Amino acid sequence: MMVKVRAESLNFLKFTRNNRLAQQKATNITWHQAIVTVQDREALLNQKGCVIWFTGLSGSGKSTLANAVEQLLHQRKHHTYVLDGDNVRHGLNRNLGFSPADREENIRRIGEVSKLFTDAGTVVMTAFISPYRADREQARALIAEDRFVEVFVECPLDVCEERDTKGLYKKARAGEIKEFTGISAPYEPPLHPEVTVNTAELSLEECAQKVVSFLEKTDLVPTEN
Amino acid sequence: MMVKVRAESLNFLKFTRNNRLAQQKATNITWHQAIVTVQDREALLNQKGCVIWFTGLSGSGKSTLANAVEQLLHQRKHHTYVLDGDNVRHGLNRNLGFSPADREENIRRIGEVSKLFTDAGTVVMTAFISPYRADREQARALIAEDRFVEVFVECPLDVCEERDTKGLYKKARAGEIKEFTGISAPYEPPLHPEVTVNTAELSLEECAQKVVSFLEKTDLVPTEN
Repeated sequence: MMVKVRAESLNFLKFTRNNRLAQQKATNITWHQAIVTVQDREALLNQKGCVIWFTGLSGSGKSTLANAVEQLLHQRKHHTYVLDGDNVRHGLNRNLGFSPADREENIRRIGEVSKLFTDAGTVVMTAFISPYRADREQARALIAEDRFVEVFVECPLDVCEERDTKGLYKKARAGEIKEFTGISAPYEPPLHPEVTVNTAELSLEECAQKVVSFLEKTDLVPTEN
Repeated sequence: MMVKVRAESLNFLKFTRNNRLAQQKATNITWHQAIVTVQDREALLNQKGCVIWFTGLSGSGKSTLANAVEQLLHQRKHHTYVLDGDNVRHGLNRNLGFSPADREENIRRIGEVSKLFTDAGTVVMTAFISPYRADREQARALIAEDRFVEVFVECPLDVCEERDTKGLYKKARAGEIKEFTGISAPYEPPLHPEVTVNTAELSLEECAQKVVSFLEKTDLVPTEN
């Protein structure tokens, strides 16, 4: 690792007073502060920090697929993390509702947190409906171009509704949930996603492999021997 | 890694329609979805996810010390990340000012993001003045008891003011910055911090080693041979 002296660390010692030993260390210094960079962390983890941004209707399989991709990568000893409703809506974004402004802020914060994880060298996955193109483009704009992988989790509405894993479509049809994506609120599919997977036509394994193949092809993770 | 079948992955296949191949795979399934847990990630990284929460006056050396601790841990091949004003105030928290409510929300979000990094298995460090005990306690309450390490970066006000690395004390004394911690706003020192380091008396290396020794003692990172 490159070691460079920072002005701050010298200031630190310069103002270390009433301590002869520390003063002495300042002159015989063998230890300088270096900044651990994103490249250092990536070298350690043998991968590139990046965001895999899953988008699609409720019930399309975003979380399931993100967890499947995470499993494949973890088996190859990569460091990964999945951001989803469970850990974000009840935590960081607990003070946000579902108004247009709050939805936008929800996605903005997820984008910013993804950026922090990317900077940490982690392969971070986000599994949110994220129905609006503009919001997804805002997230993309935060991240280096080759580190943002938009995955369109495609699945016909009727299949999602038939699955209705969380019982939300039933409630939306009964009018108990207002502005439900696909029923009473729009979903804007990506125009140029890096990867598209159709979860009504491919198995979970096939979908997950397709995502991992893209990461390999773009050198975000090394190709498995 | 333990492999357990999740209901969701079965639903995924159950509703995979119009695709005989996928149906067939569902019966001959050899691949089941498992969730990668925090324990799995920690085993991979050979460490425990935790927060090292540095608190102290402006100029006390929080960021410098956090970077020094990060360097020591990185040399031992640990995965670390530092949250500080540079990457948080200009990103996730760019829409917050310095009103009491915004200061509280600032620390709340930092606590929530730290929790996500802890769950990812990372040793995450936060370097913010975080002057109020109540806010720090709120952050602590989010994290498992043995995973929150509060480090009081102690340094007399006059030494911080003499350092004045960012020129902020001068501006605060001139009245150009209002409610500046230590000058015109209170700093509440921790009552029971896990670690206290006095940066006016110890060298940067000694301070950093003291923090790392605590991590070793509490088994958050393995002791170096």
